Amino acid sequence: MNFVPDWVRHYQKSWLGGDTVAGVIVTVMLIPQSLAYALLAGLPPEVGLYASILPLIAYAMLGSSMTLAVGPVAVASLMTASALQPLATPGSPDYVALATLLSLLSGGMLLLFGALRLGFLSHLLSHPVISGFISGSAVLIAAGQVKHLLGVNAGGTNVFDTVAQLAQAAPRTNPVTLGIGAGCLLFLLLARKSMAPWLVRLGASPRRADMASKLAPMLAVLVSTAGVATMRWDVTAGVSIVGAVPEGLPQIAWPTVSMASLGSLLLPALLISLVGFVESVSVAQSLALKRQQRIQPNRELLGLGAANIASGLSGGFPVTGGFARSVVNFAAGANTPLAGVISAVLMGVVIAALTGLFHYLPHAVLAATIIVAVVSLIDVEALREAWRYDKADAVALLATAGGVVAVGVEAGILMGVALSLGTLVWRSSHPHIAVVGRVPGTEHFRNVSRHTVTTEPGLIAVRVDESLYFANSEVLLDRVEGLVAAEPHTRHVLLVCSAVNQIDTTALAVLTNLERSLAHRGMALLLAEVKGPVLDRLSETALGHRLEGRIFLSTHAAFEYARQASDMPGRYDDPAATI
Amino acid sequence: MNFVPDWVRHYQKSWLGGDTVAGVIVTVMLIPQSLAYALLAGLPPEVGLYASILPLIAYAMLGSSMTLAVGPVAVASLMTASALQPLATPGSPDYVALATLLSLLSGGMLLLFGALRLGFLSHLLSHPVISGFISGSAVLIAAGQVKHLLGVNAGGTNVFDTVAQLAQAAPRTNPVTLGIGAGCLLFLLLARKSMAPWLVRLGASPRRADMASKLAPMLAVLVSTAGVATMRWDVTAGVSIVGAVPEGLPQIAWPTVSMASLGSLLLPALLISLVGFVESVSVAQSLALKRQQRIQPNRELLGLGAANIASGLSGGFPVTGGFARSVVNFAAGANTPLAGVISAVLMGVVIAALTGLFHYLPHAVLAATIIVAVVSLIDVEALREAWRYDKADAVALLATAGGVVAVGVEAGILMGVALSLGTLVWRSSHPHIAVVGRVPGTEHFRNVSRHTVTTEPGLIAVRVDESLYFANSEVLLDRVEGLVAAEPHTRHVLLVCSAVNQIDTTALAVLTNLERSLAHRGMALLLAEVKGPVLDRLSETALGHRLEGRIFLSTHAAFEYARQASDMPGRYDDPAATI
Repeated sequence: MNFVPDWVRHYQKSWLGGDTVAGVIVTVMLIPQSLAYALLAGLPPEVGLYASILPLIAYAMLGSSMTLAVGPVAVASLMTASALQPLATPGSPDYVALATLLSLLSGGMLLLFGALRLGFLSHLLSHPVISGFISGSAVLIAAGQVKHLLGVNAGGTNVFDTVAQLAQAAPRTNPVTLGIGAGCLLFLLLARKSMAPWLVRLGASPRRADMASKLAPMLAVLVSTAGVATMRWDVTAGVSIVGAVPEGLPQIAWPTVSMASLGSLLLPALLISLVGFVESVSVAQSLALKRQQRIQPNRELLGLGAANIASGLSGGFPVTGGFARSVVNFAAGANTPLAGVISAVLMGVVIAALTGLFHYLPHAVLAATIIVAVVSLIDVEALREAWRYDKADAVALLATAGGVVAVGVEAGILMGVALSLGTLVWRSSHPHIAVVGRVPGTEHFRNVSRHTVTTEPGLIAVRVDESLYFANSEVLLDRVEGLVAAEPHTRHVLLVCSAVNQIDTTALAVLTNLERSLAHRGMALLLAEVKGPVLDRLSETALGHRLEGRIFLSTHAAFEYARQASDMPGRYDDPAATI
Repeated sequence: MNFVPDWVRHYQKSWLGGDTVAGVIVTVMLIPQSLAYALLAGLPPEVGLYASILPLIAYAMLGSSMTLAVGPVAVASLMTASALQPLATPGSPDYVALATLLSLLSGGMLLLFGALRLGFLSHLLSHPVISGFISGSAVLIAAGQVKHLLGVNAGGTNVFDTVAQLAQAAPRTNPVTLGIGAGCLLFLLLARKSMAPWLVRLGASPRRADMASKLAPMLAVLVSTAGVATMRWDVTAGVSIVGAVPEGLPQIAWPTVSMASLGSLLLPALLISLVGFVESVSVAQSLALKRQQRIQPNRELLGLGAANIASGLSGGFPVTGGFARSVVNFAAGANTPLAGVISAVLMGVVIAALTGLFHYLPHAVLAATIIVAVVSLIDVEALREAWRYDKADAVALLATAGGVVAVGVEAGILMGVALSLGTLVWRSSHPHIAVVGRVPGTEHFRNVSRHTVTTEPGLIAVRVDESLYFANSEVLLDRVEGLVAAEPHTRHVLLVCSAVNQIDTTALAVLTNLERSLAHRGMALLLAEVKGPVLDRLSETALGHRLEGRIFLSTHAAFEYARQASDMPGRYDDPAATI
C-alpha cells in the first residue's frame, strides 16, 4: 500500500472548487451536529468538536470513498451513551476517558477486520434488521431528547422508562426552555419541509435552495445563542446552556482509564464497529455508484478504523460515515476527500478560537436539532415494503425495532444479529434437493415434481443444488433415508453433484456413513457430475476408494449403469461393512 | 401426539429377551459410571444414581431412538462442574440444588427447541468442531481426575492450571491410594485391550467376549470395595472412599434455590443442551441406520428435554445419550426403550436397598473408570483425516480443542460455535458466480472460464448458483460492478437465475439499486430463467415493473434480445433515475 493516497497524487486543479464549497457547507452542518451528538452521548461539547477534526483527516488518508463525510453520528452516539452509562457518570472525566477508550477499541477492531479482510462480516446484518434497528434507535433518541426541550431531568434506557420519567418530571417544565426548544423544533421542521421550495420561488436554483435549507440548524444556533446572550435567560429563567467550552486544539494522548473497564467495552465496541461500518459502506456505496466509482469494503474498514483511532487519541468518541452530511457533501460537489480535510481545518479554527460563541447556546436547541435529524431516519416505508414482499423479513424488522424501543439499543441489535444468523442457519440447513428423472428421449434430467420425466426402477436419483457442508449434509442424509425408506426395493442411490462446489469434512463423514450404511442394506451409492476439484480431493479418501467405478461423468451414464446392474442381484451386498 | 409410545403399542414378545439382557448389562455399566460422573461433576454419589432412574423412563416415553442409553455422561458432567464451581462449593446443598436447576433449565430449553422444531440448530456445529471439543474435554477430564489417583487436593479450570496444582501437591501423594488407583487403571486398560481376545481364546463368542469386557469396571468396583472394606485402608491409610450413600428412591421436588442464579446458568444450560443433543443424535442416528430405522431430531429434542426435566425434578443433574452405553445396549440386543426402563427399575432397586455396598468404594477407582472412559474419546484420527482432507477444518478442530484445554470448557465450545458460524457466514457470502457464454451452435450456456463459449459484445451474462439473500447479494453486486468497470462498453447485464430459489428483501433492494444505477449509466439489467414463485413475487415490486419486457424464459432469448437491442443506441438511458 502506498502512503500517499491516489486522490492526492492525481489531484486536478479543477476539483478544488467543488471540494472547497462542499467542505465549507459540511462544516456549517457539522458544528451544531457535533455539539448535539456529544450531548446525546452524554459528553461535554468539546468532545464532539474533537471528534470532527483528526478523524476526517485519517479517513481521507485511508478510506476509499470520495464523498463520505465522517464524524459523530446519531446512532453511534446513542450506542456510546448506552455502553458508558452503567460504568460512569455522564460528563465526568472518567466517562470522557471511557468514551475515548471505546473509540480506540472500535477503531482497533475495524483495523483488525480490515487487515484480516473480514469486510464480509457486515453481511451478517440483513437490510430489514438494519432498518428496524435505525428506526428503533431514532425513536429512542427522540424520546430521550424531550427532557432537554422541557428543561427537566429524566433518564431511561428504554422508551417506556423514558416516557414514565418524563411524565413524572413534566410539572417542573421550564417554560422559557420549552418556548425556545419548541420554537426551534417548529422552525427546523418547517425549514426542512418548505424552505427549499420557498427559496426556489425566490429564484434560487433547486440545488442551491436544497443546500441552503441544510444550513437552517446553524441559523437556529446563531439566533437562539444571540437571544439568550442578550436576555441572559440562563440567569433570569434558568435556561440550560452549553456554557464554557475549552478553547484550543485537541491534545494527542492515551486515555488514562483502568483497564478493568476494557472487558465491559468489548461488546459495545464490536456492535458500534459493525453498525457504523454497515451504515457507512451503504451510504458510500450508493453515492459512489452514482459516479461510476467503486467502494472497497476492506479499505473502508481501514479508513473507519483509522478515523476512530484518531478520534480516541485526540479526545473524541466513536465516529463513522454520516448519512445526511455525506449526501450534502456529494450534492455540494465534493470530488475528493480534500473536502473532508477542509472541514477538519475549519473545525480546527473553530475550536482554536471560536468556542466562546457557543457559551450561550441552549441545550434545548441542540435537542431540537437531534430530534429533527433522527425523525427522518424512521423508515416506515421499509416496513411497509418488507411486509408486502416478505412477511418473515417484516417480522425481523419489527422485532429489532421493538427490541431497541422496549429493551434498549444493545438488546435490539443483538436480537437483530441473532435473527439474521438464525435466518442464515435456517436457509443454509435447507438446501434445495430435487429427485430427478429423465426427460423422455433425451440425456436431460429434471425435477420429477415439476416435469414429466421417466425414472428407473430401483434407482433413486437426487440432485442437491448447493455445496455440501456441515450445515446441510445431515438434511441431505435425512432426505435420502426418507426416500429409501419409502422405496424398499431401491438398489442404487445416485447423487447428482452438478451444483456441489465443495464437500467439507463433515459432509464427507456423512457421505461415508451413508455409503456404508446403504451397502450394509444391499444398496449402492453412485455419484454423477462431480466437479473436477471436488473429485480430486474425494478420490484420496476412504469414500473415494470405496466408490471406485461408481462415479460417473454424466447422469445419463449413471442411469445406464443402474439399469444394467439391476440384472445382477446382490452385487453390492456388503455384510462386512459396519458404520 | 399419542401418549402411549408406538413401541409399547406394538410390543412383541420376541423382543423381551434382547431388551432384558441389554437392560441388565447397561445397568452393570451404569452403576460405576453414574457414581463416577457425579464425582466428576462435583456432586454427591447419590445424585448420579438419581440421574439414572426417571430420566431413562422419560426418554423411553418420548424419544425416537430404540437403542439410545440416556443418563449421566462425561462431557455434560464436566460442563456441569465448570458452570457451577464459580457459584457454590462442590458437594454443598446449594451446589446440588444448582445442578438440579441446571438440569431443569437445560430440559426446558430442549423441550422449547423441540416444540419450535429447532432441531436444525444442531447443524450449527461442524464435525471437526465437535470432535475437537470432545477430545479437548477428554484431556481436561482425565487431567482433573489425576488428583483422585494421587489422593491429593488440587483444582484448576484448565489443563495448565491443573498440572501446576498437581505438581505442587504431588509430594503429599497417598501411596495406598495411588496403588489402588494405578492398579485399577492398569487393569481397566488391559481389560479393554486384551480381555475380549483372551475370552475368545477361552471359547467365548466374540460378541459375548466383547460384552463381558464392558463389565470390567464393575469388577474393579467390587474387588476394590471388598479390599478396602476388609483392610479398612480408609482408616489405616487415609484412602478416600465414597462413604455413606443415602438409601431410598429419589423424591420429586422443585429445587429450592435463589432465582438470582438463573441468569448465570442460562448460557451453560444452552451449551449443555446443544452439545448433549448433537452427541445424542449422532449416536442414535448411526445405530438406527444399522437397522434401517429412523431418528426424528425434533422428537429427540422432546425425549432429551423430558429426561432432563425428570432428572432435575428427582434430584439429578444434566443427562444425555451416552456413546459407550448406547453401543453396548445396541450390541447386547436391545430392541426397544424397554431396555432403558429395565435399567431404570434395576437402578431403583440398587438405590432403594443396596447403596451400602458402595460405602468402601475408593474414589481412586472411580477416577480410574473416568480416565479409561474418556481416553477413548480422544480422537486423533479425526484430526489426521481433517488435516489430510481440509486444512481449514483441521484448524477449527485444533482451535476448539486448544480452547477447551487452555482456557476451559465453555470458552472452547463458544470458540467452536463462533468458528462454525464464521465458516457458515464466509461460505454463504461467497456464492458461486460464473460469467457464461454460449456453447457455439447450441442454446446451452456455460462458464466462460471452463468451456469454449462465445459471448455477445456489450452483454455481460452472469449466472449465480445460489438463492439471493442478505448474506450474498452485496457480493453479487460487487462482482457485477467489477465486470462492468472492466467492460465500459457494456449495454446489457444479464442475470441467469436458474439456481435462484428465493430473493429476500435485502437482495431485492440490492437488485433494485443495481438496476437503477445501471440505467443511470445507460445500461439495462436483464433477467433470465427466473423460477415461477420468484417471478410471481418479483412482478409485484417496483423492480418488477421497471423490468417489464426484460425478463426472459431462457438465456438464449435474452442473448437474442441483447444482440438485436444493441443496434438501437441509447434506448435504456434513464437520466431521471436516481439511486
